[in-house]
Amino acid sequence: MSDKQTSSTQPREDKRAIRVTSLGGGHGLFNTLRAARKVSDYVSAVVTVADDGGSSGRMRRELGEVPPGDLRMALAALSRDNERGMLWEKTLQHRFGGNGALKGHAVGNILITGLSQVMGSLTAALDELAALLGVKGRVIPVCDEPLDLEAEVTGLEEDPREVVAVRGQVAVATTIGQVRRVKIFPHNPQPTPEALEAIEHADLVTLGPGSWFSSVIPHILMPAVVEALNNSSAPKVLVMNLVAEPGEMAGMSMEHHIHMVNQHAKDLLIDVVVVDLTTMQGASERRHFERAASALGARVIYRDVREDDGRGRFSDRHMPDKMATVFQEILDTPIEDLPAHLS
Amino acid sequence: MSDKQTSSTQPREDKRAIRVTSLGGGHGLFNTLRAARKVSDYVSAVVTVADDGGSSGRMRRELGEVPPGDLRMALAALSRDNERGMLWEKTLQHRFGGNGALKGHAVGNILITGLSQVMGSLTAALDELAALLGVKGRVIPVCDEPLDLEAEVTGLEEDPREVVAVRGQVAVATTIGQVRRVKIFPHNPQPTPEALEAIEHADLVTLGPGSWFSSVIPHILMPAVVEALNNSSAPKVLVMNLVAEPGEMAGMSMEHHIHMVNQHAKDLLIDVVVVDLTTMQGASERRHFERAASALGARVIYRDVREDDGRGRFSDRHMPDKMATVFQEILDTPIEDLPAHLS
Repeated sequence: MSDKQTSSTQPREDKRAIRVTSLGGGHGLFNTLRAARKVSDYVSAVVTVADDGGSSGRMRRELGEVPPGDLRMALAALSRDNERGMLWEKTLQHRFGGNGALKGHAVGNILITGLSQVMGSLTAALDELAALLGVKGRVIPVCDEPLDLEAEVTGLEEDPREVVAVRGQVAVATTIGQVRRVKIFPHNPQPTPEALEAIEHADLVTLGPGSWFSSVIPHILMPAVVEALNNSSAPKVLVMNLVAEPGEMAGMSMEHHIHMVNQHAKDLLIDVVVVDLTTMQGASERRHFERAASALGARVIYRDVREDDGRGRFSDRHMPDKMATVFQEILDTPIEDLPAHLS
Repeated sequence: MSDKQTSSTQPREDKRAIRVTSLGGGHGLFNTLRAARKVSDYVSAVVTVADDGGSSGRMRRELGEVPPGDLRMALAALSRDNERGMLWEKTLQHRFGGNGALKGHAVGNILITGLSQVMGSLTAALDELAALLGVKGRVIPVCDEPLDLEAEVTGLEEDPREVVAVRGQVAVATTIGQVRRVKIFPHNPQPTPEALEAIEHADLVTLGPGSWFSSVIPHILMPAVVEALNNSSAPKVLVMNLVAEPGEMAGMSMEHHIHMVNQHAKDLLIDVVVVDLTTMQGASERRHFERAASALGARVIYRDVREDDGRGRFSDRHMPDKMATVFQEILDTPIEDLPAHLS
């Protein structure tokens, strides 16, 4: 490693100087941010705004605001790592019980939306909360209006080839059919300038893991986001999921995940695709996968990023510590020198 | 004034060393706290927990928690006097619109209740919020369980002397009958130790103005609060309302307000009763009032404390600046030297 650092075209800098920008949503983004903060003291989360389920969905429908849930989780992931930070992380995530109108609402959702209404700007409200919670970085909505997902789905009608339009994030995520393509409404939403700036000025940009059609693809359906990614000199890292998600990606091969990215954003260039060691073990499967990745301009690296309990039992989540090690490796190493496998 | 300061048994201290503790609830307490912070950098609000209306009442019924509304208003009143403080004051007070389940809920109510559930302590949650908002002082619930008001009301039945029990703060505040007496449920609630301590260690204690049966009397229905007031060496100041409130105190004379205090807390001693210059102008009315006040051990001072628009037009609210002048006068002057009127 020390040789690589010396010879690197991208010399290792002080932790404080490194800016990581992570695109995504939900639990996948939460874990990625937890990893990113280990290698960077300025982490920007660029967060999906297409959720329509749960507390977020209710607030969105009632108030016409951007669904706050994914933003809340990103703030929680980046909260200061001390007693107060942990308290506020817990409070943002706290949901009311009882059996009335507040049941299931998360405190953070209400706080984000309320502050945003008072300030007249969601981005300003998130910056204020980030400052209050001691976040070293930013939580940025990819867009400052709520988005709707619509998927072309097959396998729902008698004729399995018939394409049905399924609308809404929850509906898309739980359809029993095959999602062929997703769109976002309104058409051509404008990404926030803050999101584009965070992508362009990063030292490392990550996309995924997460619910592919809800948290990964929507970002790259915006041409300005793809352009910012391609313009950024930072390595662009796509982190693959560990398991097929129930619903939207059931039965979709790892290779098909990559095709989906390519199909939805033809111009997008990715530098590195990170695959967990356990997810594709067949040599031919890997070959097909690598060929698909090369269409994005990416090299594939296989690393241990799956959470384990220290006694050899794996979970279905990524482990922030392990992801951080991979992010650090990518920061320290010229892309062309990244080995597919660590010896 | 400077003579009085020199001869005072209670020498004027640095603003920072002065602790003011204000008992009450609602808008009356809000204005009193605004006044108190002008003469003190450590203001404790001891707040009623008997509300059952609006956003507070809904939360109380749904979640079984202390109604947060009066606590929220006290926090807002004490928020830091800078840009961030003003932003958070506005956010705490912000109510959702729309037409769904969140309509009318105040952000601060949700934040107080959520944080209290996470911390397992309402007092701790209020201290945390106070720290976050830069409050120099504390907001303390008088009791850490929700209280219910019940009033004995006459004038509701054909026989006008028949006594009817009216239950609940909103019901008591809006009854068209005459409230004769109020009780709180559960019986003998324990005040929080923090409330008692704030009363005992104050340099000035205020009670009122405010909704008499909702915000003033409930405090002194707790014997331990009365004992703490009597034990405290601070001057105890009762600030009278400017106008009869719609509902609960309609037609009740100023003198009767004092009788009500005496009737509900026989042992309570008050040092100074502050009456606005405009509220009682007849000499005989004042004489009756002063006689009633002497049963509390109090002397009455008449001062200009009513809000005006600078052009001689008065509102029905107390003006914090004017109240602060009176509080400062009381802090600076031995009680026995306080003149009934300023020359």
